[in-house]
Amino acid sequence: MKHYPKIRLFTTAPLQESAQVELSKEQAHYLVNVMRRRENDEILIFNGTDGEFRANIISASKKNCTLNILEQTRKQQAQPDIWLCFAPVKNAPITNIIQKATELGASLLQPVITKHTVVTRVNTERLVANAVEAAEQSMRITVPVINEPMQLEKLLSNWDMERKLIFCDESGGGEHIIHALSRLEKHAKYAVLIGPEGGFAESEFALLRNKPYVVPVGMGPRIFRADTAALVALASVFSIVGDWDEKPGFRPE
Amino acid sequence: MKHYPKIRLFTTAPLQESAQVELSKEQAHYLVNVMRRRENDEILIFNGTDGEFRANIISASKKNCTLNILEQTRKQQAQPDIWLCFAPVKNAPITNIIQKATELGASLLQPVITKHTVVTRVNTERLVANAVEAAEQSMRITVPVINEPMQLEKLLSNWDMERKLIFCDESGGGEHIIHALSRLEKHAKYAVLIGPEGGFAESEFALLRNKPYVVPVGMGPRIFRADTAALVALASVFSIVGDWDEKPGFRPE
Repeated sequence: MKHYPKIRLFTTAPLQESAQVELSKEQAHYLVNVMRRRENDEILIFNGTDGEFRANIISASKKNCTLNILEQTRKQQAQPDIWLCFAPVKNAPITNIIQKATELGASLLQPVITKHTVVTRVNTERLVANAVEAAEQSMRITVPVINEPMQLEKLLSNWDMERKLIFCDESGGGEHIIHALSRLEKHAKYAVLIGPEGGFAESEFALLRNKPYVVPVGMGPRIFRADTAALVALASVFSIVGDWDEKPGFRPE
Repeated sequence: MKHYPKIRLFTTAPLQESAQVELSKEQAHYLVNVMRRRENDEILIFNGTDGEFRANIISASKKNCTLNILEQTRKQQAQPDIWLCFAPVKNAPITNIIQKATELGASLLQPVITKHTVVTRVNTERLVANAVEAAEQSMRITVPVINEPMQLEKLLSNWDMERKLIFCDESGGGEHIIHALSRLEKHAKYAVLIGPEGGFAESEFALLRNKPYVVPVGMGPRIFRADTAALVALASVFSIVGDWDEKPGFRPE
């Protein structure tokens, strides 16, 4: 088995063999001061569009670090188009939601403001940083898009009718999530919708039930916290209509 | 809809209508000093064997609190017999594993020491406290059993052959977890096995593959952290061979 560098970073720069890439100040600090990497040390780098590359450090100071791209280690690959729409919750659970949804492979994370949502201010920049870190560590070849929070009604008014919305209905009105998903098309566009701790308002239930693209589902008799529900529903979607037929082992070895 | 008290506590005392129950010092502190409850205020209480009851406070001081049991709010119910066997990980993820596994409904949590397990000392008492808190908050009618850590070989040497062990094989050798579970008996005895961050050793793979009760499974192409893998595998087991055909709404209303 070929040996790959342990450190893996995301960049927005274009990547190709022999190109040079300037890391951000924060990345230079992490690489040089925290991880004590020096000239000629190697890392992995990816940008979500050109694949993943092995690169070595050609110059490094405390605030700047330039890489030389050596060889491609993974080609870019299409990823499932599965979103997570979630009512923001308090600090630790929201970090948990971003991290786990990124590991699971969500392509887009949409904070949704509902009538019973208590947390309405979201530090989107911090959520992006959480997602990038989770993508770097989980070997994802992409980083999910993180949208600014949006009102539920506005989200639904612009909805793409081809994207089924898997609506986690904690009131017990939905069908067993696995049974419902088993009848749906594989590898299509999906989104999961998770409400706030206080549940959806009656008017929101009514709004959702009227939409032809909404699939109300249930996840058994127990009550889950919002972050648990998000993760479990997302995993169900990936397992039944996503790409779990594929196996790990994506490295050319 | 009937109104139920928001605070819900677990006790080891026997429970029946008109009985009196002495709370622990920690519970009295929580109820009286933190939540500011006084005489005649009501809470819910359960013990994992007699069901759940509404109770009111008949005497309260900073260190002692006595309840009078009023009426039963839920009968005791049999729960799925599904275990989680996991290699302990660092602090935050292990708390996450205990909390989420409790919400999902695991009946027993077994820390397992494997060759590549870095964390070998586990504060079992703290894990029990985490599980009790998660059970109280998630309306579970039971609290999972938390065992002391055990070596993998010892765990397997005493294994009940009727309990299928769903072995999360991050090397890609297993079948799609949902497909594998779909062929297995519903409502039977199950356990999920999750390895440490470093994976299983070759000798452990060999040991596991030789056991007739082991079902090697995979969860798609991406790499999950240990706590994510534990939660996702456990949710899959509950959804396919557990009790997700049941719905929430367990209160007599």
